[in-house]
Amino acid sequence: MSDLQAILDSIHTELLPRLGEGKVADYIPELAKVDPNQFGMAIATVDGNVRSVGDADIPFSIQSISKVFMLTLALGKVGESLWKRVGREPSGTAFNSIVQLEREEGIPRNPFINAGAIAVSDIVLSGHAPREAIGELLRFVRYVADDESITIDDKVARSETQTGFRNIALANFMRAYGNLDHPVEHVLGVYFHQCALSMTCEQLAKAGLYLAARGTNPITGHSVVSPKRARRINALMLTCGHYDGSGDFAYHVGLPGKSGVGGGILAVAPGIGSIAVWSPGLNKVGNSQLGAVALEMLAARTGWSVFGD
Amino acid sequence: MSDLQAILDSIHTELLPRLGEGKVADYIPELAKVDPNQFGMAIATVDGNVRSVGDADIPFSIQSISKVFMLTLALGKVGESLWKRVGREPSGTAFNSIVQLEREEGIPRNPFINAGAIAVSDIVLSGHAPREAIGELLRFVRYVADDESITIDDKVARSETQTGFRNIALANFMRAYGNLDHPVEHVLGVYFHQCALSMTCEQLAKAGLYLAARGTNPITGHSVVSPKRARRINALMLTCGHYDGSGDFAYHVGLPGKSGVGGGILAVAPGIGSIAVWSPGLNKVGNSQLGAVALEMLAARTGWSVFGD
Amino acid sequence: MSDLQAILDSIHTELLPRLGEGKVADYIPELAKVDPNQFGMAIATVDGNVRSVGDADIPFSIQSISKVFMLTLALGKVGESLWKRVGREPSGTAFNSIVQLEREEGIPRNPFINAGAIAVSDIVLSGHAPREAIGELLRFVRYVADDESITIDDKVARSETQTGFRNIALANFMRAYGNLDHPVEHVLGVYFHQCALSMTCEQLAKAGLYLAARGTNPITGHSVVSPKRARRINALMLTCGHYDGSGDFAYHVGLPGKSGVGGGILAVAPGIGSIAVWSPGLNKVGNSQLGAVALEMLAARTGWSVFGD
Amino acid sequence: MSDLQAILDSIHTELLPRLGEGKVADYIPELAKVDPNQFGMAIATVDGNVRSVGDADIPFSIQSISKVFMLTLALGKVGESLWKRVGREPSGTAFNSIVQLEREEGIPRNPFINAGAIAVSDIVLSGHAPREAIGELLRFVRYVADDESITIDDKVARSETQTGFRNIALANFMRAYGNLDHPVEHVLGVYFHQCALSMTCEQLAKAGLYLAARGTNPITGHSVVSPKRARRINALMLTCGHYDGSGDFAYHVGLPGKSGVGGGILAVAPGIGSIAVWSPGLNKVGNSQLGAVALEMLAARTGWSVFGD
Repeated sequence: MSDLQAILDSIHTELLPRLGEGKVADYIPELAKVDPNQFGMAIATVDGNVRSVGDADIPFSIQSISKVFMLTLALGKVGESLWKRVGREPSGTAFNSIVQLEREEGIPRNPFINAGAIAVSDIVLSGHAPREAIGELLRFVRYVADDESITIDDKVARSETQTGFRNIALANFMRAYGNLDHPVEHVLGVYFHQCALSMTCEQLAKAGLYLAARGTNPITGHSVVSPKRARRINALMLTCGHYDGSGDFAYHVGLPGKSGVGGGILAVAPGIGSIAVWSPGLNKVGNSQLGAVALEMLAARTGWSVFGD
Repeated sequence: MSDLQAILDSIHTELLPRLGEGKVADYIPELAKVDPNQFGMAIATVDGNVRSVGDADIPFSIQSISKVFMLTLALGKVGESLWKRVGREPSGTAFNSIVQLEREEGIPRNPFINAGAIAVSDIVLSGHAPREAIGELLRFVRYVADDESITIDDKVARSETQTGFRNIALANFMRAYGNLDHPVEHVLGVYFHQCALSMTCEQLAKAGLYLAARGTNPITGHSVVSPKRARRINALMLTCGHYDGSGDFAYHVGLPGKSGVGGGILAVAPGIGSIAVWSPGLNKVGNSQLGAVALEMLAARTGWSVFGD
Repeated sequence: MSDLQAILDSIHTELLPRLGEGKVADYIPELAKVDPNQFGMAIATVDGNVRSVGDADIPFSIQSISKVFMLTLALGKVGESLWKRVGREPSGTAFNSIVQLEREEGIPRNPFINAGAIAVSDIVLSGHAPREAIGELLRFVRYVADDESITIDDKVARSETQTGFRNIALANFMRAYGNLDHPVEHVLGVYFHQCALSMTCEQLAKAGLYLAARGTNPITGHSVVSPKRARRINALMLTCGHYDGSGDFAYHVGLPGKSGVGGGILAVAPGIGSIAVWSPGLNKVGNSQLGAVALEMLAARTGWSVFGD
Repeated sequence: MSDLQAILDSIHTELLPRLGEGKVADYIPELAKVDPNQFGMAIATVDGNVRSVGDADIPFSIQSISKVFMLTLALGKVGESLWKRVGREPSGTAFNSIVQLEREEGIPRNPFINAGAIAVSDIVLSGHAPREAIGELLRFVRYVADDESITIDDKVARSETQTGFRNIALANFMRAYGNLDHPVEHVLGVYFHQCALSMTCEQLAKAGLYLAARGTNPITGHSVVSPKRARRINALMLTCGHYDGSGDFAYHVGLPGKSGVGGGILAVAPGIGSIAVWSPGLNKVGNSQLGAVALEMLAARTGWSVFGD
């Protein structure tokens, strides 16, 4: 499929003059230091091939993309009962909004907004010390990506801990409603570390491949989730994966995806492959500006949209 | 594909004991009179075949499903400039909520909630008397369904007009923000009549087929929209088609769909076919209870989910 | 009390250089035509004297100040049962907000926001044709002011009818919740005409005197309400009389008051007198800018604040 | 004024059969242990007399009533610049709501809701260690009450600290918006301790007397605030002192007042006296049920309403 490499190359070439567009996240000091003039993209296809372009081998902070892996882990632990504590609907509000939490009495709208991911962290913590839960997540991500070199960036985790007042507010608010079982500090310890996972586009594309391949990583043969669960996680990514820009992403790209404020996006083409893109500048709803553009180009040129070719 | 007929039959058989579940919409007097013990389903596939089961030949009030056809018409008239007046994001609120309209200054979140559809009606009205706009919609639906017998139920339209205080409120509110060009009565005249379109499952499945077939009805060969626009309408149906139950529908069914309070749902399997299901009892977010169950069964048995097989 | 005249004169003199401050209401075309460089003030004391300064004999549109008289009328008709349909709490939102109405299912927060006054109009309508209800209000205001020359400005009423989309929305929304007994057009007919009452500061000060004098106009001896009801209406004016600027008005002026977008304010000094001030320019929460300043000066110089001297 | 004692006695007698009405606050474990069958009332008049009835000499947790003293302290420190960080409008929401904070970007609506009092605590902290700020408040309350025996109940403070997740959320949320200068733990340390002030009705009535007497305690001659500031604090108590029941309290009682979830209410009759009432059972908006009734009786029998006699 040399076509695919050609498509990646053409996207890269066309976007080169636009490098630096958007605004790097500045509310986490460590992220603010990242050079905005970077762009990488990688595609892992279900046949086991990985193609990439640009800065696809430079690690970046995957931030909220980790919510996909945490949700997978938590569903593995507690199954569908997870949905007693988290909803499955788009929020219609910003990623860190607390308004909805009050109106809906401590039940976050979905697992991909911060409040929902904090509840998921609480579930993953069950029966663990925070350090162990973080270890479990790291092992899981290394397992699905088939790459032992993936790490958590402690400086980023620390930076988030020190400035994450809004997340501390969300966690305490849920605790007030009885929707956290563990001490807030433990839950946030897990939450801030998951956000600090550091991965390259290539690693991330491979890590997401199980979602494109009926729940099983075709490269390693590892079964991660059932085909049904893979479909369902994809559905959540499509409706809720881009905060209050989810509808727009579906409209323009047409693939399930999850973005992070580090500038990464993981997208899934069911039955075909998994795509990771990274460029640090964000658009005004907090998603990678060039990342979204690159994925729109890719979908248009490949016909991979789930909504028709 | 006799399999497909067998699947339809099995769904029908399994749901027979559950007929009457849910609650028939009672805020529109004419709809409240409908016998809840009805269930019909029809599938039109891109090869031109139509299969059906149960009450698939009984006309029902398609209500909000008409918003898909109105959007198609309006996009044909004004193209992407439509999005200056209507958003593309899930609302996170009920179908007739006015809260969001105030917060976002008269711009409805998407074309599939009532406020959005009222704005779309205003667009379709441009340069027309209300009667002509209604005539244009009727001709369009007959054209895409290839069926001249489709009608608008005047009793339902009148019933909605007399009790539609909330929709009158929405329209006046948008007018106050300058987001309606025509007199409120004219716009609502169009809006209430579109909701009163009366169709059978078979007609509806055929009418939606262009969305599954790259924008062209494969039976008649009529080109309705471009492939890109068909994909985009499908994306909107998936993220916004079931009000505040859109996430749940995507999770369980995995197909773009649009529901109506008459108990109908139109779903699209891109590249495969168009499905219409009807059962009057509604669940608590206002979507057909058995209709949603039937579609979940269908998706599970066919592997048609857009999120993987 | 020649002191009082001196105080009025000093306020007038000090404010003359500031005439024209604020912004004349422009959403009602007739009001937008008013010359902003006007200022009048009148005080009617419980001993029957009326003192005034500036343009106190020029009629202006009292707009929402009429809500005080309508509430008095409605309480006379249905007594405390009125509070089943309208709340008594500050709204925390703008005068024409619809958000609260949805959250609290059609029950307006208080009788001094638009939605509340529309519900009060519905109560005053009971058993009347709209024309009669308007006649009753006009007779009532003439009676409390002891002045048969007070009129309703039909041009203003018509202007409001033609542009009052937001009020039409509010009324229909309440109707949808069952909180209006009469047709929306009738209720709004009453509502728009009450807003169009045209009075001078002198007339208005006399009309409000019953609120300062235990419910009885000391000039005419007419008993309007009981002392208890007079206190309660004053309480509502203090907590809710200036929309989302009520707290600020209480903080700076310390008197019960009701403002209108025509630039008038009626204030009450219980046991002492009734004050009317008018200057068309509005501050950003929609209250007369110089009117509020004049009342703050008056309260500071007289020690009339209800919160201590 | 033996009449006043007779009025207190009659109120007490009439309320005795109703002791136990309402619901004792249970979200703070220490408060849940209080015997609900208690009722005390004390009045300190500007002539220096103190009259009381019932359990007026039993200390109770004054909780949010302390917000009045903290506001007085903070205004003494930073003057009117305080209002850059806190609003002066009724909130229209519950005492611990976070919704408004998000909409208004970290600026609490007024100093008498929890968020506002937390911001005020931050101001009082300036240049202090938390322990010193708490000491300063305690000295201040002892000073205005002229009673060195007043204490802070450490068990209550600890109980609040351990269960105050919602207040922790509010504080972190404000910190996220830059509206706290000190570490959240320090600010909340002050906040939780002020709530745990333990006072009798007699002490509380004397402590509030400066608000009734132009800012100066007439018993001790201590000048606490200027007359203007006393009026303004009274105005805030009237419009914002009872959370979302402020309008109702003004309507029924007609006096500036501040309630606490411990079941106490401090009310002020400007120029006349200061009233403290205590009964632990709360009504549904979180104010003392019998306390409010007793104050309504008192106002009716004395004619002390600020809105007329």
